[in-house]
Amino acid sequence: MDKRTKFTLDEEEIPRSWYNIQADFPEPLPPILHPGTGKPVGPDDLAPLFPMELIKQEVSTERWIEIPEEIRDIYRLWRPTTLFRAHRLEKFLDTPAKIFYKYEGSSPPGSHKPNTAVAQVYYNKQEGIKRITTETGAGQWGSALSFGGACFGVEIKVFMVAISYQQKPYRRIMMQTWGANCVPSPSPETKAGRAMLEKWPDCPGSLGLAISEAVEEAVSRDDTHYALGSVLNHVLLHQTVNGLETKKLMEKADVYPDIIVGCIGGGSNFAGLFLPFVKDKIDGTKPDLRIINVEPMSAPTMTRGPYAYDFGDTAGLTPLIKMFTLGHDFIPPPIHAGGLRYHGMAPIICHLYNLGFVEARAEHQLATFEAGVTFARTEGIISAPEPNHCLKVAIDEALKCKESGEAKTILIAHSGHGHVDMAAYDAYFGGKLKDYEYPKEKIDEALAKLPEIPGE
Amino acid sequence: MDKRTKFTLDEEEIPRSWYNIQADFPEPLPPILHPGTGKPVGPDDLAPLFPMELIKQEVSTERWIEIPEEIRDIYRLWRPTTLFRAHRLEKFLDTPAKIFYKYEGSSPPGSHKPNTAVAQVYYNKQEGIKRITTETGAGQWGSALSFGGACFGVEIKVFMVAISYQQKPYRRIMMQTWGANCVPSPSPETKAGRAMLEKWPDCPGSLGLAISEAVEEAVSRDDTHYALGSVLNHVLLHQTVNGLETKKLMEKADVYPDIIVGCIGGGSNFAGLFLPFVKDKIDGTKPDLRIINVEPMSAPTMTRGPYAYDFGDTAGLTPLIKMFTLGHDFIPPPIHAGGLRYHGMAPIICHLYNLGFVEARAEHQLATFEAGVTFARTEGIISAPEPNHCLKVAIDEALKCKESGEAKTILIAHSGHGHVDMAAYDAYFGGKLKDYEYPKEKIDEALAKLPEIPGE
Repeated sequence: MDKRTKFTLDEEEIPRSWYNIQADFPEPLPPILHPGTGKPVGPDDLAPLFPMELIKQEVSTERWIEIPEEIRDIYRLWRPTTLFRAHRLEKFLDTPAKIFYKYEGSSPPGSHKPNTAVAQVYYNKQEGIKRITTETGAGQWGSALSFGGACFGVEIKVFMVAISYQQKPYRRIMMQTWGANCVPSPSPETKAGRAMLEKWPDCPGSLGLAISEAVEEAVSRDDTHYALGSVLNHVLLHQTVNGLETKKLMEKADVYPDIIVGCIGGGSNFAGLFLPFVKDKIDGTKPDLRIINVEPMSAPTMTRGPYAYDFGDTAGLTPLIKMFTLGHDFIPPPIHAGGLRYHGMAPIICHLYNLGFVEARAEHQLATFEAGVTFARTEGIISAPEPNHCLKVAIDEALKCKESGEAKTILIAHSGHGHVDMAAYDAYFGGKLKDYEYPKEKIDEALAKLPEIPGE
Repeated sequence: MDKRTKFTLDEEEIPRSWYNIQADFPEPLPPILHPGTGKPVGPDDLAPLFPMELIKQEVSTERWIEIPEEIRDIYRLWRPTTLFRAHRLEKFLDTPAKIFYKYEGSSPPGSHKPNTAVAQVYYNKQEGIKRITTETGAGQWGSALSFGGACFGVEIKVFMVAISYQQKPYRRIMMQTWGANCVPSPSPETKAGRAMLEKWPDCPGSLGLAISEAVEEAVSRDDTHYALGSVLNHVLLHQTVNGLETKKLMEKADVYPDIIVGCIGGGSNFAGLFLPFVKDKIDGTKPDLRIINVEPMSAPTMTRGPYAYDFGDTAGLTPLIKMFTLGHDFIPPPIHAGGLRYHGMAPIICHLYNLGFVEARAEHQLATFEAGVTFARTEGIISAPEPNHCLKVAIDEALKCKESGEAKTILIAHSGHGHVDMAAYDAYFGGKLKDYEYPKEKIDEALAKLPEIPGE
């Protein structure tokens, strides 16, 4: 029996370029539109928010984009990350399937997020930017950007949704440990925040409002830019460092996946892993490869939403993005998988879904925690609520193999640990978590408010 | 410049044997004594608590003790662990010193503890034991043993100090996730617990009382044993898997340490790393090697206590152990570095200290957190409060090198991350932590109660 449990690369093997799927699309991505004119946005529209290198990456169709050595030097702190063979889970399930997981939880903030956070801070620093603002919900992204700021000496200001700021202090303290300034949103420091506090002094906040505050502050100060942790093309680009490593490691393990599963919120974690593989499906080398995007039943963007132009934020400040969407004023129900509550989805994933290269599936919360507990008791790692979603699907597929007798190779994109999410496990064990299916009439209501495109 | 940041081994290189320092002592360890007779305890005295293999390991003078393949297979889930070169910390300190740290935080429970937890559960399972009890303070050990129980299907019951059970829920939930039964101590489930609850219904508990409860339950049930997470010889033996890896990795990095630093509570983490190196000092190969044990100023066992026979627990249930001690009814002051509050110290470390092979130093809490924050902002990793103690000393030694111009090689035994200790960082940032020096009269008072040895 092949006992090998971990497949690793030397740090010299950290990829030297990111892979840009835009070079290999059979048809190009629909453009991002200016909400005022209905015309594609140009670099000048984005320059107050992002450095020019990132704006170029956003629209580039070059296949390979070089990773600067300064970024690779920071990646060395935790990359390349390990590919695990889940021998103990396989044995527990009594399945002929071979289960692998690529684990991103070994980064200092404990997830895949620093792959892009470090890159974004680097390009901003190169352009002379001294401060970066961002928003964060549960805190994964805010802590990753704070870590990135510490790496390059750039000041980070995080607007954290107030209710999370109060109820989930651990990620906030992490941000402070890395030297960032984390404030609850709504804050008195922006017009948007002050307006809300005047109407509703105890407002618990929302991700949409936090985005508005971060963008407002970035636009109003010359030394300050804004950073986004998912959805955008350049974010997915940076995350491909993970998929490129995984492809090399699967070769080391002498396998190619039949099925790849990952959870999607904004989509950057899973896309980062699967994009270098989906290329093989687009070019016809691996026509049978299945790529399953897993979302929560409570925010069923891909499985229930239409493919339409919508705002990226709740307040309607961003350009219009063509994506599967539940409507930009979608209010997600209480669910602990904080990273999977976004109303939209990365345009790259939506495009691939629309073209039929990837699948989507929605899962109920309780079943995902059950899968997470099974994983912890076999493989040891306590997973964040987000990757529990794809663990559920991986286990289902492995059990199908048990029935059919097929020895399929299943690859899991494991985005990180749940050390600061233990309260969610406590709620699960205490019977306090509930399943929640988003009601059709609420979706219809939100979709009725999709923006009109000027000139159409 | 040597850019290499991480030094790793393949999982096939996980050591095949643990190293037993008892083979190389210039004079043998003082025996453990029966408190009733004053005579050395024999295997029969320990058999109600421990499996015979562990009892043999406790007194063995064989240099190498084979690691069973079943244990190595579990070690494969996270071992070998990585040796890091702290380039960014060196640059920040502007020191010619080369700083390395061996990091044990990548294990599922996040510390070195599972190195012995997995082994202890294995040997118990081999002897047909179905249940293991233990105590835990902040929860590091309890969660590691719970993980070990999940690995081999052995039921784990953890008596957790009540105040920690209430105030530090994250580790408790981790234990539950791995399937263990964690109860607050004092509990109504033992005589010792009931007696305390009758006197003091809201008793916050203590580690000593939790030990009493765990031992009482183990002794009273044939299917149940007891496990201890530090101090004992067999625990330190299992931890040498880390030191043996480190020695190989330092060779890969083409260096040998001038100074090794680690924090000590019971002592197993640091001893596990330094024992394979101290051998070189004992045999005269490396006479100048310095090994610095770092303890908190608030529990200054090695730097202030006498070398004397004392009980291992507060209640006086254990055999008498010759060690540096602050007296078995030492009550540690409130300090967040939960793992460093023990009144005694591993006999192996005490013996080496007494023979002059290792040094000891005590540090104040605030300075250790300052060091931890510096480390987080340079190397990324947010450390547990315990390793912050040795980070403080490593930084001090690196700064001495800056003054003297010496390019010394400093090796840090980094026992784990602080993801579930963020409340301590919050208290530090909020100015709520205080330094605390243990008053001389309190030490004298505790030492006046050292047990008499029958027959002497």
